[in-house]
Amino acid sequence: MSDSQSIDVVHGGTKVLTMETLNPNVVKMEYAVLGPIYIRALELEKELAEGTPKPFGAILKGNIGDCHATGQTPITFVRQVIALCTYPLLLEDPMFPEDAKQRARGILAACSGHSVGSYSASPGIAVFQKDVAAYISQRDGQPCCSNNIFLCTGATEGIRIVLKMLMTGKSGSEQAGIMIPVPQYPLYSATLTEFNACPIPYYLDEENNWSLEVDELNRALTAAKGKCIPRAICVINPGNPTGQVLSKENIENIIRFAHKEGLVILADEVYQYNVYAKGSQFFSFKKVLIEMGSPYCSHELASFMSTSKGFMGECGFRGGYCEMANFQDDVQKCLLKSISARLCPPVLGQIVMSILTNPPQEGDSSYAKFQDEKSNVLSVLAEKARLITDLFNSIEGISCNEVQGAMYAFPRIYLPDKAIDAARKLNQNPDFFYCSQLLEETGICTVPGSGFGQKEGTYHFRITILPPLEDIRRILGLFKSFHLRFLDKYK
Amino acid sequence: MSDSQSIDVVHGGTKVLTMETLNPNVVKMEYAVLGPIYIRALELEKELAEGTPKPFGAILKGNIGDCHATGQTPITFVRQVIALCTYPLLLEDPMFPEDAKQRARGILAACSGHSVGSYSASPGIAVFQKDVAAYISQRDGQPCCSNNIFLCTGATEGIRIVLKMLMTGKSGSEQAGIMIPVPQYPLYSATLTEFNACPIPYYLDEENNWSLEVDELNRALTAAKGKCIPRAICVINPGNPTGQVLSKENIENIIRFAHKEGLVILADEVYQYNVYAKGSQFFSFKKVLIEMGSPYCSHELASFMSTSKGFMGECGFRGGYCEMANFQDDVQKCLLKSISARLCPPVLGQIVMSILTNPPQEGDSSYAKFQDEKSNVLSVLAEKARLITDLFNSIEGISCNEVQGAMYAFPRIYLPDKAIDAARKLNQNPDFFYCSQLLEETGICTVPGSGFGQKEGTYHFRITILPPLEDIRRILGLFKSFHLRFLDKYK
Repeated sequence: MSDSQSIDVVHGGTKVLTMETLNPNVVKMEYAVLGPIYIRALELEKELAEGTPKPFGAILKGNIGDCHATGQTPITFVRQVIALCTYPLLLEDPMFPEDAKQRARGILAACSGHSVGSYSASPGIAVFQKDVAAYISQRDGQPCCSNNIFLCTGATEGIRIVLKMLMTGKSGSEQAGIMIPVPQYPLYSATLTEFNACPIPYYLDEENNWSLEVDELNRALTAAKGKCIPRAICVINPGNPTGQVLSKENIENIIRFAHKEGLVILADEVYQYNVYAKGSQFFSFKKVLIEMGSPYCSHELASFMSTSKGFMGECGFRGGYCEMANFQDDVQKCLLKSISARLCPPVLGQIVMSILTNPPQEGDSSYAKFQDEKSNVLSVLAEKARLITDLFNSIEGISCNEVQGAMYAFPRIYLPDKAIDAARKLNQNPDFFYCSQLLEETGICTVPGSGFGQKEGTYHFRITILPPLEDIRRILGLFKSFHLRFLDKYK
Repeated sequence: MSDSQSIDVVHGGTKVLTMETLNPNVVKMEYAVLGPIYIRALELEKELAEGTPKPFGAILKGNIGDCHATGQTPITFVRQVIALCTYPLLLEDPMFPEDAKQRARGILAACSGHSVGSYSASPGIAVFQKDVAAYISQRDGQPCCSNNIFLCTGATEGIRIVLKMLMTGKSGSEQAGIMIPVPQYPLYSATLTEFNACPIPYYLDEENNWSLEVDELNRALTAAKGKCIPRAICVINPGNPTGQVLSKENIENIIRFAHKEGLVILADEVYQYNVYAKGSQFFSFKKVLIEMGSPYCSHELASFMSTSKGFMGECGFRGGYCEMANFQDDVQKCLLKSISARLCPPVLGQIVMSILTNPPQEGDSSYAKFQDEKSNVLSVLAEKARLITDLFNSIEGISCNEVQGAMYAFPRIYLPDKAIDAARKLNQNPDFFYCSQLLEETGICTVPGSGFGQKEGTYHFRITILPPLEDIRRILGLFKSFHLRFLDKYK
């Protein structure tokens, strides 16, 4: 803002918007994934580019689940269909397989004016809603109505839209209370702060591989009584940042709890393809809820999915969907009205979601390649999950639960008292203090556990499992030597 | 929602979310462009497809500025670059021009991991911020700092982000007050309702071709004193739905008013390419403000642009930008923080915006074609604007100000008292009553003036000027015969 700055100096102009007059909820909200550590990493990257000598040659962005940025290659069929839809002259090009062309023709026929440049209906293109519904039906062996699906600009927008519906529009003891896990993905805390809602934190049990215990849900809800109006419980499965995968029994208990307490369930299931551990399996809340029968099968559930994770990792396309199960008809109409003012989610992101949920079938010319690419991505991720868990646990002063799913390790770091004191003197969270030094000395960019929430007196950080296998050993080697130096420095 | 419905019936399940417990601001908010008339049009379209006989053969969607849906063809260079970035194997394909390939290579080099599937920085890819800043500098002959630019998911998201910053987080007499024109684009009223803010309506003067008079701004602001904390004034130029283009003097007066009253200026300038009338010219608020010198040149201004309008009409890509001029450094940092939780706008929409602001230059192989396509779209739109204005004014009981710019006509309809009584009996706004019958009898889908706001006792509707020239005469013919029947019926 150098230009405006200089103008200010010249005219000493007083401003309408200051930190005092800004929306206080926006001032308060924090999103640690792209917080101070990441911002410092970008500065260091700039300094490196300008030739400033550093103890490292490059920044290793382990802060965000950005698959293609860390070398994952796109699924060919996805990109072929997008290219064909964007530039239909390519439908004559022999380099494209017939099924990709057929798919593109079908999509263009479903676009107003046969152009992906037209707005779609606010909840998304109807045939894509049907693709998603068919995917869910097949996944769960249970019916899914395409009217209950709306596509969104990444899962993020869907989660914000549903949370918005749950707000009371009031403050004080009449604020909406939303149960969120600790540790949690900070989109939830950031959005609740922005909406001036009351988070009701429930703790995952690190000693039991980040399990979600109903006793803890009861404790958390009781503690919130009188402070807000509890409206919903958010569950992230597979977990982010914790990587745990919930068992069917666990999900049943959560549903019983939500039903007993009259809480809408928000199921963040964007990592449903990312399950690696032996014995772990993904169960959707929708499937479990329906199979539980009355009265649970009619309980209100919103489930979220994304094109950014799984095996496609198409983050830049901003594709997502939400399934609204068991909501009242007029409530759902109201939600559709509420999304109409934003017009529609990006059409190409919708196409990616339609391919995720309606991939090439056996017999299609692209089937084999699609399956190869998919299973290759997922098996390599599983290998990385195992390797990173093992490497962290081989380091003194670190313990790391098994990365059963998702895309992150969330190791616990046992910090010496001297390090904690040194951090406090700087008015920093001890894990922030630790992650800052890790960045400055090694170029490894992580997210401090305090950005996700953690049990008082415990310290963690989140790092993605995404870097290429051959780099992971090197990165963890760098990390280990830093960590031992750190322990030595503050022992 | 048939499945959930049936479940409700079986179990008589009581719901957490009802119209009583929903966020009341969401219940209240309305977005007329996709409101009841449009929803009815979709039903009629379905019935037509099912073979139900209607007095018309197709629905004519005149409700929304959806360029490609009404036959406008994409700009070739845009689609070529998108296809190349999406499927880089095409960089070897001789069918693509060299400058499109060069552009694509540059863009991929700026994407993390050379993939448009990676997240970008939250404000957008840095080289695109620079493209936008260079475009603004050249447009205005004034400096623009790329740090002041953030890209967004259509102009819609940018406007919502800036309005969010202006909220007080309080209610009652401490609500933020935002001045909006009447008639206005209903995104503003819908967003202010959702945010529980207080709209301060100022009326455009229909008798003077929808001019914006400072006396009226003073009246409106005085009337709002004590009811809220006035924070900003929104101006739409060229106007939507009114199509007026503000003169330089008019803009100067608005800036003096905003400065005197301490109001942030939100300039909705998404139609800056869509100026048709002789003697009309687009002046950006930024240019006028800077040229006015001290103290005005340091006044806070947010300006919005979109890829959905102008000559590209790429609505489905959801591309937009916001320029934040003269905001405090820490305020701008806070805004950047607030957009980090949504990760990034769609990368392909960012690419469309980068081409809009950095088109092929003289000497590039695609230059001539790009210029031809651009001027063709804009000259045809100008012809449509003239034709529609003339046709409406040739009809008894209709008056229509000249469509100087944007993409809509907003004719005034003089309704007989009997029609107004008939509407009131049905508890409908008279213009809604009129537009419903227009839809049912002709298939023409418009938006009632009451959805945009209008002076008490006046009635209008909005219709786009986008249909192909050869269709416009036919559509207006259909309209004329309906209108005369209507007048006769209620005379």
